[in-house]
Amino acid sequence: MNSLNEGSATVVETMIADAERLGLGVHRLECGTTWIDCGIEVSGSFEAGRLYALACLGGEGDLAFSEFDLQGSPWPALSLTLSSPLKSCMGCQYAGWEVKYASEGKSRRALGSGPARMLGSSEALLDRLNLRERSSRAVLALETRKKPGDELALAVAERCSVVPEELFLLAAPTASLVGSVQIAARIVETGIHKMIEEGLPVGGLLSAWGRCPLPPVAADDLTAMGRTNDAVLYGGTAWYAFGGDDALLASLFDRLVSASSGDYGRPFLEIFQAGGGDFYKIDPALFSPAEVFVNSVATGRTFHAGRRRDDLLARSWLG
Amino acid sequence: MNSLNEGSATVVETMIADAERLGLGVHRLECGTTWIDCGIEVSGSFEAGRLYALACLGGEGDLAFSEFDLQGSPWPALSLTLSSPLKSCMGCQYAGWEVKYASEGKSRRALGSGPARMLGSSEALLDRLNLRERSSRAVLALETRKKPGDELALAVAERCSVVPEELFLLAAPTASLVGSVQIAARIVETGIHKMIEEGLPVGGLLSAWGRCPLPPVAADDLTAMGRTNDAVLYGGTAWYAFGGDDALLASLFDRLVSASSGDYGRPFLEIFQAGGGDFYKIDPALFSPAEVFVNSVATGRTFHAGRRRDDLLARSWLG
Amino acid sequence: MNSLNEGSATVVETMIADAERLGLGVHRLECGTTWIDCGIEVSGSFEAGRLYALACLGGEGDLAFSEFDLQGSPWPALSLTLSSPLKSCMGCQYAGWEVKYASEGKSRRALGSGPARMLGSSEALLDRLNLRERSSRAVLALETRKKPGDELALAVAERCSVVPEELFLLAAPTASLVGSVQIAARIVETGIHKMIEEGLPVGGLLSAWGRCPLPPVAADDLTAMGRTNDAVLYGGTAWYAFGGDDALLASLFDRLVSASSGDYGRPFLEIFQAGGGDFYKIDPALFSPAEVFVNSVATGRTFHAGRRRDDLLARSWLG
Repeated sequence: MNSLNEGSATVVETMIADAERLGLGVHRLECGTTWIDCGIEVSGSFEAGRLYALACLGGEGDLAFSEFDLQGSPWPALSLTLSSPLKSCMGCQYAGWEVKYASEGKSRRALGSGPARMLGSSEALLDRLNLRERSSRAVLALETRKKPGDELALAVAERCSVVPEELFLLAAPTASLVGSVQIAARIVETGIHKMIEEGLPVGGLLSAWGRCPLPPVAADDLTAMGRTNDAVLYGGTAWYAFGGDDALLASLFDRLVSASSGDYGRPFLEIFQAGGGDFYKIDPALFSPAEVFVNSVATGRTFHAGRRRDDLLARSWLG
Repeated sequence: MNSLNEGSATVVETMIADAERLGLGVHRLECGTTWIDCGIEVSGSFEAGRLYALACLGGEGDLAFSEFDLQGSPWPALSLTLSSPLKSCMGCQYAGWEVKYASEGKSRRALGSGPARMLGSSEALLDRLNLRERSSRAVLALETRKKPGDELALAVAERCSVVPEELFLLAAPTASLVGSVQIAARIVETGIHKMIEEGLPVGGLLSAWGRCPLPPVAADDLTAMGRTNDAVLYGGTAWYAFGGDDALLASLFDRLVSASSGDYGRPFLEIFQAGGGDFYKIDPALFSPAEVFVNSVATGRTFHAGRRRDDLLARSWLG
Repeated sequence: MNSLNEGSATVVETMIADAERLGLGVHRLECGTTWIDCGIEVSGSFEAGRLYALACLGGEGDLAFSEFDLQGSPWPALSLTLSSPLKSCMGCQYAGWEVKYASEGKSRRALGSGPARMLGSSEALLDRLNLRERSSRAVLALETRKKPGDELALAVAERCSVVPEELFLLAAPTASLVGSVQIAARIVETGIHKMIEEGLPVGGLLSAWGRCPLPPVAADDLTAMGRTNDAVLYGGTAWYAFGGDDALLASLFDRLVSASSGDYGRPFLEIFQAGGGDFYKIDPALFSPAEVFVNSVATGRTFHAGRRRDDLLARSWLG
């Protein structure tokens, strides 16, 4: 079996080959690393967003445009089906790698997503869940409006033990077409992350399915942060097949959804600003899908919690 | 044009190549036949179920995960579009081959689905509808928790006139992820089977479309039998384009749906148990899609009958 | 990057290779041009319609069968996502080329769609929007019940500057499975055409998404014309991401949908017949999607107008 980094690199090759059609910009850094502008100086596209998301997931999974009922109107959405949700979401897609590097004499940080994490990130989660692999190629995705440079590329390549020429960086701002699609594609990952926070044995996760409406592109990244979070917290549904004992699951199921937070019911940007713009003041329980189903295959029970709020999405998005 | 067995074998090759990712187990019997465990000792996956279903259909058709509105919540479903519904469903997918073989001195039976039927099954239906082909490879799928052995493989290979090395067997229990998906994929076939029972000239079938919600995996095969039948009888919709005279169709259209049975409205498991667990005591009219549309292209009329019962599905599945 | 005619020719090659399965007829004219019968003497299929539509769009875009809620029942639909909507829709799909040619001593006309327009059509629109390309192969699609002959093929090939052997013609009547699908696929194009009529700078269009229910096949082309127009005018939704100044857009947004016409609310065939069967007597404002969203990425605003009328579709289609 190919590594997830290899699978992801194959997706990136498609993005490079079809760059013009997809609205992407392909750049080569001095050190030899290729980085793809997915929305900084270019417009990107829905399909580019789907490929970006697929690359973040290690190239595995079925990602398709679908639809969401927004107060009686069909609205574009992304649906995904994953056969190895733990590996694809927590090994690859979760934006958990804080890459530290120096640039112009200053210490800097970038938050990375994608299968390169399994090679180079020191996140304890990756070791605990045994989400490691070997690969001579690496793919890292950055949600940013800042173009990646040689210092960042060299730091990532070194930690991943790949030559810079075999590293691929993807960059897209929150406020972009690609940003909208790739964040919607995080609906399944958001639910798994919450399961981990609640102490559930996520090794038992089998297949997963999710659907999240595409947030409309905002004029700036702050507003986009609000809209994209609203998409997941108030519009997203995740469905999991879970193997193993479901006693713990049964006892805490209600906590897997955004409605478990006291902040539920207000647009994300409003919550963020009420906390003085400090992410760490937001109740972590909020970061969950709007709605979750878990089918426990050992007992045949199916748990359901949460609900969507398309009224709130319409208010945030159509204003 | 390739044979449907060839098309199906190509799908099986994908299943073998991606077995680890798909949660499948690949085994080789002494006689040379390869069989794929799709849920007996392995967990399988949604995507494995989609490929199993595609292999059952002779490798032709567009099968995609979609969704179903379960009392206001999105629930994973399978949708399929077929260009040759009669060949794919009745030539291949229908589980109509009762393979008889001897094992440990005893006479045994296995119920087979898939394009191998067109090669080796003596079902009168296949001759009547002219659903035969020649192929040096054969694919047969079994809904079972019993691992296939050499005796069964040799019996199938012989009747299909293929060498055992060119026979592929797929096995998945009813209570499994693959079981849930592949049974949902039978929604179009269920409607065609009912048309045949009612004496409609199904040679006039052109394209077809169907959608069926995925039944959640049950803890045992009996409960799974109830849930998977509920998916089709109370959740499934089939849409057909029909060429030819529609006079007969117009006169019996109401009988193509599950609501034409007096048993309609109760969970399948309850009906089954009320009949003492004897399949043959169940009204055959019940085995139909919940809802059927037929567009008669000669007259332009579109017939519609039946309706879905998501309240009943929620009771059966989320209990 | 390949030309759109090349991309389209690749789709046509698939149609030729799978002709039997797809219900298509492949013919070679004396001059060397290949034409594909998609519904004149053959039945075609849903999948053939999807490929026909993809060929019309220059081979680019994601076209998938989806569904529409027809008075509470799921009904088959086509959804599409386009990365270069202007090029795919106005450069290729729009049926704007009136090919004039002589046959049996008479002057004749055929209305063509597809990427060959970018090579050979003198439409001013193509020059104004800079929708031209070079290609040694050409693909033209015709909505007709008349089989194309050598005179037409030679005229098209000459204007496209391709040898007749490298020209491919697709033909499907309105009243056919392929006709139903390929017209539903025009939902995004219909909205762009209306934008152009209203004087919007469509060069700012980025990605687009649309969904349109599949009209059931009618017994004759006149009734089919009514049903297919009803699908778009009363069932279709188009969603656009738009870059650039949105002041003009904000001022005329309401005019982008069919409800902006006084004729809105009556079945298309009734409107057509009330005008004495003269297309030019129909209010051009009517030719619009039922519902349109435009997300202006510069300001982050999203405009919404129109609404679907599934009651009217049910009346027109299920009678």
